[in-house]
Amino acid sequence: MQVIRSIRELQARADTERAAGRRLALVPTMGALHAGHVSLIEVAREHADQVWVSIFVNPTQFDAPADLEAYPRTWESDLEACRAAGVAVVFAPVAREMYPEGADTAVEVGELSKPLCGAARAGHFRGVTTVVTKLLLAAKPHAAVFGQKDFQQLAVIRRMVRDLNLDVEIIGGPTVREADGLALSSRNRRLDPEARRQALVLSRALDSAEDAVAAGERDGERLLALVREEIAKAPRARIDYAELRDPDSLARAPGLLKEPTLLALAVFLDPTPVEPPAGEGVRLIDNRVLHPHA
Amino acid sequence: MQVIRSIRELQARADTERAAGRRLALVPTMGALHAGHVSLIEVAREHADQVWVSIFVNPTQFDAPADLEAYPRTWESDLEACRAAGVAVVFAPVAREMYPEGADTAVEVGELSKPLCGAARAGHFRGVTTVVTKLLLAAKPHAAVFGQKDFQQLAVIRRMVRDLNLDVEIIGGPTVREADGLALSSRNRRLDPEARRQALVLSRALDSAEDAVAAGERDGERLLALVREEIAKAPRARIDYAELRDPDSLARAPGLLKEPTLLALAVFLDPTPVEPPAGEGVRLIDNRVLHPHA
Repeated sequence: MQVIRSIRELQARADTERAAGRRLALVPTMGALHAGHVSLIEVAREHADQVWVSIFVNPTQFDAPADLEAYPRTWESDLEACRAAGVAVVFAPVAREMYPEGADTAVEVGELSKPLCGAARAGHFRGVTTVVTKLLLAAKPHAAVFGQKDFQQLAVIRRMVRDLNLDVEIIGGPTVREADGLALSSRNRRLDPEARRQALVLSRALDSAEDAVAAGERDGERLLALVREEIAKAPRARIDYAELRDPDSLARAPGLLKEPTLLALAVFLDPTPVEPPAGEGVRLIDNRVLHPHA
Repeated sequence: MQVIRSIRELQARADTERAAGRRLALVPTMGALHAGHVSLIEVAREHADQVWVSIFVNPTQFDAPADLEAYPRTWESDLEACRAAGVAVVFAPVAREMYPEGADTAVEVGELSKPLCGAARAGHFRGVTTVVTKLLLAAKPHAAVFGQKDFQQLAVIRRMVRDLNLDVEIIGGPTVREADGLALSSRNRRLDPEARRQALVLSRALDSAEDAVAAGERDGERLLALVREEIAKAPRARIDYAELRDPDSLARAPGLLKEPTLLALAVFLDPTPVEPPAGEGVRLIDNRVLHPHA
């Protein structure tokens, strides 16, 4: 496994592999790798001869400095996880390599970036689309894999790649969960034991909405009321958003569900039952596509 | 010479040529080809095995609908010019191919896009950087050639390509002029004979500033006064901007010129000596880098 820190060197290696007819798949990450990332690496392997992983905690996609600072860094175990998963190249640039002096170019997707996490986190998706463009053009992969847990991010990146004519296949990898249902996230390790226990309300809220749809419920407001009720059971959980959206356009779903509909959640898990100062809660997201005709 | 209208087909041809080890250079144009474009094709040939030309009048870079409408379209003679110049591929997409339904991604360069033509034409460079990214990713060239007449455009594109890690060499081609000094531009054919005659004040103003610098003048305000004086000799010429800027950062030049300095001009040539309704003047640009130590 080769660790590469320079964009030029990465591009040279990509050119060599491509010239040799090998297919490359990139898994972009911010490190703090867990079984969810490993699952993305496995998905990537099904689509390529070589899997490359980038590890870069991108400062421009954090709206809150405290969140950037608290984001876990686990370099040694990340490298070990990549090695164990058979990754060929780890690209780990320093910030100055990705944003050299005078860097002043942004990539922006319009409407898809506005609701949900885009509304909650100013500038977040502009940071994501800019860095993903840079990473895809640095690594020149044939395919790239992103987790479906970040549903909106995946939708935004698909649109961007299509719009810019980036010749990269974008693949969504399924969300991996703990045995009790909690979606894996690098942020989970910031939860204290009580917050970790209460964080289960996210997946339970999704389950209860899914069960209700299976039992015939089609009323969006009643489904969202169920979700809020479930989350209210955890005193340290504070809803950032809970919304029903069209899975493609992310437009607000109609009052009565007829088509497959995204139920998207963002919930802060607070260190105490009282709302803490900004940056001290741990913001978790999860989602499910509800199928009213299933 | 192959005319390609589909992005997928263009990318497939690029992959084939690249796999065969051939080097590609793209000359992006909006058609209405003249000797200036042919000169860019010749520059491109020095850097590649195959020269490709794109012809696409990009709607998103026109701030004024009248300007877009008046922009000359000369498809048959453009094709003839490409054939005569030994171009291998002409990429001529319709607007729907470049901007499919739901297209909503923009590429933006910050500071460099703000002064000069960026201040005069709202959204212009955002349109340029977005379409150039799309064209470079559609054609996958090793190099691309842009005219130095559009000095700011070249600076903005260089910055964008560097920032996004686009693995494309950007080459500036020198401005080609008529025998009397007028810089070639597709817009020149919109000038009536009297406006054409008066349009000479642009190059004359640049000449007089250059002569003054050669004679020892270093005062920026006095140089700009010379420029304005020269342009005032043409009653149908109306200055949009006349500025001295740093050629790299495009920051305002200091009061006394010490380093090479860009003198950039944009001048409307009006159909009458009275300012016409918006869109009826023909806006011409020209520039020169002044060398106080030459």
